[in-house]
Amino acid sequence: MALSYAEAVDKLTVEAQNQGAVYREQYEMCSILKASGRMAKDAVRSPETTPKFDTSAMDGYALNSELTANATAESPVIFLVKGMIAAGDEPIPAFGDAGLDGVYPCVEIMTGARFPETFDCCVRIEDTVSFSDESSDRCYIKVMRPAKPRQHRRLAGSDFKEGDVIISAGAVISPAHIMAMASVGVTEVEVLRKPRIGVFSTGSEMQPAEATKPNLHRIRDANGPHIMATLSDWGVDADFLEVLDDNADSMVKKLLYHITEPKYDIIISTGAVSTGRFDTVPTSLKRLNTRVVFHRIAVKPGHPALFGIIPRQGDRCSGSNGIAYFGLPGNPVAAAACLRFLVNPFIKIFQDQQLEVPLRARVRSEEIEKTDIIASSENCAQLLSTFPPDKDVFRPGISHRLSDGEMGVTLIQDHSPSKVKPFAASNCWIHIHRGHTELRAGDMVDVFLN
Amino acid sequence: MALSYAEAVDKLTVEAQNQGAVYREQYEMCSILKASGRMAKDAVRSPETTPKFDTSAMDGYALNSELTANATAESPVIFLVKGMIAAGDEPIPAFGDAGLDGVYPCVEIMTGARFPETFDCCVRIEDTVSFSDESSDRCYIKVMRPAKPRQHRRLAGSDFKEGDVIISAGAVISPAHIMAMASVGVTEVEVLRKPRIGVFSTGSEMQPAEATKPNLHRIRDANGPHIMATLSDWGVDADFLEVLDDNADSMVKKLLYHITEPKYDIIISTGAVSTGRFDTVPTSLKRLNTRVVFHRIAVKPGHPALFGIIPRQGDRCSGSNGIAYFGLPGNPVAAAACLRFLVNPFIKIFQDQQLEVPLRARVRSEEIEKTDIIASSENCAQLLSTFPPDKDVFRPGISHRLSDGEMGVTLIQDHSPSKVKPFAASNCWIHIHRGHTELRAGDMVDVFLN
Repeated sequence: MALSYAEAVDKLTVEAQNQGAVYREQYEMCSILKASGRMAKDAVRSPETTPKFDTSAMDGYALNSELTANATAESPVIFLVKGMIAAGDEPIPAFGDAGLDGVYPCVEIMTGARFPETFDCCVRIEDTVSFSDESSDRCYIKVMRPAKPRQHRRLAGSDFKEGDVIISAGAVISPAHIMAMASVGVTEVEVLRKPRIGVFSTGSEMQPAEATKPNLHRIRDANGPHIMATLSDWGVDADFLEVLDDNADSMVKKLLYHITEPKYDIIISTGAVSTGRFDTVPTSLKRLNTRVVFHRIAVKPGHPALFGIIPRQGDRCSGSNGIAYFGLPGNPVAAAACLRFLVNPFIKIFQDQQLEVPLRARVRSEEIEKTDIIASSENCAQLLSTFPPDKDVFRPGISHRLSDGEMGVTLIQDHSPSKVKPFAASNCWIHIHRGHTELRAGDMVDVFLN
Repeated sequence: MALSYAEAVDKLTVEAQNQGAVYREQYEMCSILKASGRMAKDAVRSPETTPKFDTSAMDGYALNSELTANATAESPVIFLVKGMIAAGDEPIPAFGDAGLDGVYPCVEIMTGARFPETFDCCVRIEDTVSFSDESSDRCYIKVMRPAKPRQHRRLAGSDFKEGDVIISAGAVISPAHIMAMASVGVTEVEVLRKPRIGVFSTGSEMQPAEATKPNLHRIRDANGPHIMATLSDWGVDADFLEVLDDNADSMVKKLLYHITEPKYDIIISTGAVSTGRFDTVPTSLKRLNTRVVFHRIAVKPGHPALFGIIPRQGDRCSGSNGIAYFGLPGNPVAAAACLRFLVNPFIKIFQDQQLEVPLRARVRSEEIEKTDIIASSENCAQLLSTFPPDKDVFRPGISHRLSDGEMGVTLIQDHSPSKVKPFAASNCWIHIHRGHTELRAGDMVDVFLN
């Protein structure tokens, strides 16, 4: 009896935790400008308290609010404008006493300018009337209503406190985190290095995707480009190694090279993973003393999938146990399913991330989609597909937002592990869990976006 | 009365359609390996029909199904194994007649191998019993039940037909598209060039984020790094130009340089966009004969935002009308809101993409989140926040998937256009539409993920 998908994920999780222990201690310095999407190794804390000084939140006049307590339109309080402070200006010297004429001073202040110590609040320009005395060349303002203490004044220390956590250890860095780091003067951050993955395609009938002279008896490798593009979107460092013939000797030789120089955390191959006589992956892995964690699981498509740990050769420094090896099926849609549902969870756990939580979507038949009617009774709802009871099934689908904000999904009907055309028209995977034997229009399903 | 958000988006849409008309004719060739996330200029069609030849879908024996019509376990049909065809082998010569002993031939065939013309189906290895005649060194198989015509035979032309559309014009290229292009021998694709955006920060009080020697009277530019990281995540080419002082002369000079050499499609600045005397953006744009499409809109935060079209100088080749200019507010959270809700829609329409449709999420108070109880009656549901009736409000929030697959969101309470710390803790924006004056626990809202 083949392993169930849930059991396979449990095993992947344990191995990813173990294999990833050493990896997760490996980091590199990264400019905050390049840090979006990277994982913070440790918590990032603010080295300072911000803002460092009080600033004005408005364009207006800095003055002492106490003096405006009795201000009214009929009896405004008059202030002498003693100068102007713009954003970025040096602080001005203290002055606050009334002149000989009994008129108290104020200072014109711009948004973002450092607040003078002697004044407590800002009155907006539009809440004042200014006038000037031509004989003395002095400027004055009238304030027509009481100002609140500290109004329109942004207080020092009201944003970050020294030691505040900006990013938790292991969190994926977002542009908002980058804004925060920039605001407190953090210019670099320790991030986990990206996982390194080597990708092979296998099959004597395969020619590399970039081969310009087509061979009539061969088919093109579509797995290599698909896996490389997907891994790149997932933010890992991936190298496409080559297309290998169905020959165990040359495969062992190639694998030995890549595990002796421990460049990769994970190796992925497609094809040659069943139990036929040209299925060189199991044979080659055995010769490399691979600990096979599972081979063949109860999923559709993708049942031949193999996962094991190859011991590293000549690796004296990293101390990790080995290299994770995913032998995916050769059929492109089966390989894509295994990449999404086996390799992706492993990479997440390997990096100490949470497993992806599926979206929930309502299944619609194409007819229902057109007429926008959802069958209300489960018994009479249209049967869309049936499934084997003992397998987890992954079906390509097309998801779309419905007018009420809910997510709808239609199944790709003409699906097959080997057919690329229907898969290229899909934008998500529908996961039908083991034990669910049918899907009817209106059912809710788990959806993973591509 | 300031423009409403909906009116602003309408204006942005018209301008993006017009300004983007020339841009959308500009493309570059791109290897399919680098094409994920790029936009196809034209529809990509399959240059060939695939598979090019029939192949075996299983490891087994190619034979003539007619001969097995009466096969049973008691009376199996015997075939002579005349050879073996592996994937990638050249086709074998025709043979199909019975030998002198009356035994018909078959050929061992591997998954993916080219199907011999003379046989019509494949019987899986596990459905046969093989034996050999030691005297003649010949191998035979027994077939114990009738085989169906064409079983386990993958037919030529069953996937792509020549001329089938792989990617529609303007579609965003996915890894599944890349798989499809690789499978039919397409190695390069015409993609729209990425939009080019130049980013300024303004403010005499600002020092660049990378400045290592802090100036006590200055604050660090957090807008530049945030905008650059966000634009990079959106897949556009962005250059950070510099931090400008609040000086219209130097701003005009800088802008003139960047619009004379027409490198950018869009210029974004932060700060200096209000109507105060140090708000150099409106002044500078006026001196450059900018057509201001809107200045100040009824949103919170971000109301000072300005959008206009600067006529290009000395531009003899592109024929486009001008350069789109976004003057965003200087407060970092207000700038972020305008980037997400004004610049993002413009970039989408500019590239002929659909506007982003918000997710729907249920608002939860932090207390409700803890106890997992949703208030059932709207009247008694906890009031979480109130809003001005005449504005669209954008509030940072924290979204999370609930156990039933629904999306929940909590509001960041300690929010302010100038406070970076609460924004850095958010992972989404909540859009509260104009006219909605309160939000209660359990309400459904529009959410845009960051």
